Amino acid sequence: MEPLPTSALVLLSGGMDSTTLAYTIRHDNPEMDLHALAFDYGQRHGPRELPCAAQTAGRLRARFDVVNIRALTSFLSGSALTDPENVAVPEGHYSDETMRATVVPNRNAIMLNIAVGVAVARGLDRIATAVHAGDHPIYPDCRPEFIGRLNDLIEVATEGFSKPGLRVLAPFVMQPKDFIAKLGDRLGVPWRETWSCYMGGETHCGRCGTCVERAEAFALAGVDDPTVYLDPDFWRTAAAAG
Amino acid sequence: MEPLPTSALVLLSGGMDSTTLAYTIRHDNPEMDLHALAFDYGQRHGPRELPCAAQTAGRLRARFDVVNIRALTSFLSGSALTDPENVAVPEGHYSDETMRATVVPNRNAIMLNIAVGVAVARGLDRIATAVHAGDHPIYPDCRPEFIGRLNDLIEVATEGFSKPGLRVLAPFVMQPKDFIAKLGDRLGVPWRETWSCYMGGETHCGRCGTCVERAEAFALAGVDDPTVYLDPDFWRTAAAAG
Repeated sequence: MEPLPTSALVLLSGGMDSTTLAYTIRHDNPEMDLHALAFDYGQRHGPRELPCAAQTAGRLRARFDVVNIRALTSFLSGSALTDPENVAVPEGHYSDETMRATVVPNRNAIMLNIAVGVAVARGLDRIATAVHAGDHPIYPDCRPEFIGRLNDLIEVATEGFSKPGLRVLAPFVMQPKDFIAKLGDRLGVPWRETWSCYMGGETHCGRCGTCVERAEAFALAGVDDPTVYLDPDFWRTAAAAG
Repeated sequence: MEPLPTSALVLLSGGMDSTTLAYTIRHDNPEMDLHALAFDYGQRHGPRELPCAAQTAGRLRARFDVVNIRALTSFLSGSALTDPENVAVPEGHYSDETMRATVVPNRNAIMLNIAVGVAVARGLDRIATAVHAGDHPIYPDCRPEFIGRLNDLIEVATEGFSKPGLRVLAPFVMQPKDFIAKLGDRLGVPWRETWSCYMGGETHCGRCGTCVERAEAFALAGVDDPTVYLDPDFWRTAAAAG
């Protein structure tokens, strides 16, 4: 039988999904050697979400590192997340066609493969990512097939160098976002220490895709949403139309 | 029938393998929209090989870019290629156990997935890499299974965003390095405009794994080797022992 994992690297953006994932892992594995990895890819909400990620890592006694991949951004341009001068962040529901402007091509494959390299270098047992079902309509690299094929790749790419059984776990991949809100609520995730808004202002805008998705998830889960939104009611209209 | 590719992105390090690959693609596709991508990952031979790559791209009318991923290096440390202060470049034959010190964990998966992102952003048809059979004994991410599984991943990771049929071609993956020397010779590759030595000095050292492999490949191919090596005869002993 494969030995139980004693170490894990969690991809921690500072949003509600990856924060809940990190809390879940720590809750289930109080003694685990936990590492958290965030990416600075020049996302306009970086100055908001990265400090949230650092705070969560501190609370959970996880080693925390930010990998700066900004140099890649100009090569993967055309996404509203990284190209503020030329591409506007679309408003509305996450599943809308317009939200395709937020796709950074192959982003998750790049980040997860970097995480694999880090996990091999540190001799870690598992990698965890918080991709979830709500991401599937627009991001092809958040789907179950993607995680499956990534694990097939890891198996051969790191053979002889990685800990046996190193693989990516994506426990939320078939779950909607309100499942995550419920789970996080149960684990006592301090939601004010998470950031979603793609606009990266002082306050959540309430109108971009990820704000709409956030507000909707709390509502569907029946969980009190402590987030301050500039436009607190927009999500109802967008969710109804989406 | 799938349309013929009209554009390609070649991973061009400036070594003899990728340079020969780029010459082959240009020879076979005189009108192709050719892009060349090099990586600065802090390799100690970067100042030698990257200018070679730029020169080749210029000769072949290819758009040339260097992607700076040095920020990753500290996270993937422990390789002799990127950690000059702490890890010595081993001498001897490439297939030796000691050469494992030159492995940067998951390097090709990271670079090729970045290349995929670039190809999607630019709407290109193909990606080409010069991994070859001589790399297999030590680098797991240079084997045919790796290329196959990477293509399985690309298929789902970029679905709906990439050009249909986008995939990685690795035409040398089953070929030994002397095949590349013969092919490059036939195509008139200017070998003096390629760089192999991991030491990154003014002249090829003749003793590191890639110098030994280079000299051996020319000899096996019966191709005149114009490279100046500091120790021009070491490779014979190392190759016999390897």
